[in-house]
Amino acid sequence: MHTGDIDYAAGDANLRGYLAFKDRGVKRPGVLVFHEGLGLGDFAMERARRLAERGYVAFAADMFGERRQAADLQQAMTLIGHLRTNPATLRGRARAALATLTALPEVDATRCAAIGFCFGGTVVLKLARDGADLKAVVSFHGVLSTTQPAAAGAVRASVLVLTGADDPLAPSDQVAAFENEMRAGKVADWQVISYGNTLHGFANPAADGSIMKSALYDARADRRSWAAMQGLFDEVLV
Amino acid sequence: MHTGDIDYAAGDANLRGYLAFKDRGVKRPGVLVFHEGLGLGDFAMERARRLAERGYVAFAADMFGERRQAADLQQAMTLIGHLRTNPATLRGRARAALATLTALPEVDATRCAAIGFCFGGTVVLKLARDGADLKAVVSFHGVLSTTQPAAAGAVRASVLVLTGADDPLAPSDQVAAFENEMRAGKVADWQVISYGNTLHGFANPAADGSIMKSALYDARADRRSWAAMQGLFDEVLV
Repeated sequence: MHTGDIDYAAGDANLRGYLAFKDRGVKRPGVLVFHEGLGLGDFAMERARRLAERGYVAFAADMFGERRQAADLQQAMTLIGHLRTNPATLRGRARAALATLTALPEVDATRCAAIGFCFGGTVVLKLARDGADLKAVVSFHGVLSTTQPAAAGAVRASVLVLTGADDPLAPSDQVAAFENEMRAGKVADWQVISYGNTLHGFANPAADGSIMKSALYDARADRRSWAAMQGLFDEVLV
Repeated sequence: MHTGDIDYAAGDANLRGYLAFKDRGVKRPGVLVFHEGLGLGDFAMERARRLAERGYVAFAADMFGERRQAADLQQAMTLIGHLRTNPATLRGRARAALATLTALPEVDATRCAAIGFCFGGTVVLKLARDGADLKAVVSFHGVLSTTQPAAAGAVRASVLVLTGADDPLAPSDQVAAFENEMRAGKVADWQVISYGNTLHGFANPAADGSIMKSALYDARADRRSWAAMQGLFDEVLV
């Protein structure tokens, strides 16, 4: 497997992503991986390698710049807050990651998808709402609310939302509002999977409740959500 | 593959189910199939054979007696209504199907599950709420509401609900109430999958809107929901 860093830029931000792919030769579908609120670290990189094992060219984006990582919840909230209150910056960085991926000679730019965890879930939904040319976006325990809902017909990607039924960052009424947004936006393909007894951060083995009490790894939900993602990719990235 | 009818009884009702299994020899996990409101017909039987192909002993139950089938919506509503208003009868017939399945020499009675479509979804949830010894129950476009919610700790089965986001028989508030029932009932394992742009009856190729306008086959939701069921069975029926 080939792995390595890729430096790219968006506005005045220097971003350092992480690439993983299995082999050169035929062009492969590409998958973006957007990190959680702590920044691009081991977790997203491991997921990128896992995707590479399955035959995708995986690019884990850096949304914070200089590959910054938060040491605690407060730092994470500051880094996320900066992007949340500047949606154009968030959009620009997400778009830059997509452009970086699709420009790679190993990637079939017509067959790309994006997955994101926690904050990264927000990012992939932003890309979808924004009409990015993606076959699929998958949000793992992401925040689903937005101040800029999808315009009717704008979303081109198949949308898969994987959410913990007890995630305080994505409570039932937020999920219901998201479903209504999908309906109003006439999104052609969307699904929501709600996992019972499951909190925030369920896919991340490092989520042990120490940084955020309600972020807790759940091996079963992790396994199921990854399989659901793979099922969608088997449909749309072939 | 072996297929054939099995006559059994519950109270004073003569029930005629349909059995399908691949081979004799080792005991296999058993799966009950509960028909939709039109009664036990081709659709549930085909699903039973499909399960048999996957190595399960499948028993399609007869909930109406004498293998009655409804010719139209009014007949279906009468047959269903009789059971809905007599939950003890419904329970007795569902339990009789389970007892018939688990008594078969081909079945490993410790590894059984139940799936149901439309009305059959209500039946499998009834079994789950009732504490039946099932590893899993799967409801395909079933009605989720109940007058007898699960008592805390009563449900032993893993519960998987597959529902159309636009199914008028399972609207959002009903799904939300069901999720609250699962929480209050301290159900150890439950999931809800909501398929966008999907109506009632999505798994049944015969659902063409003629008998019920809002019952409409959807090949994608059919495929996805069957795969979700199989994923759960791969976890709990091994």
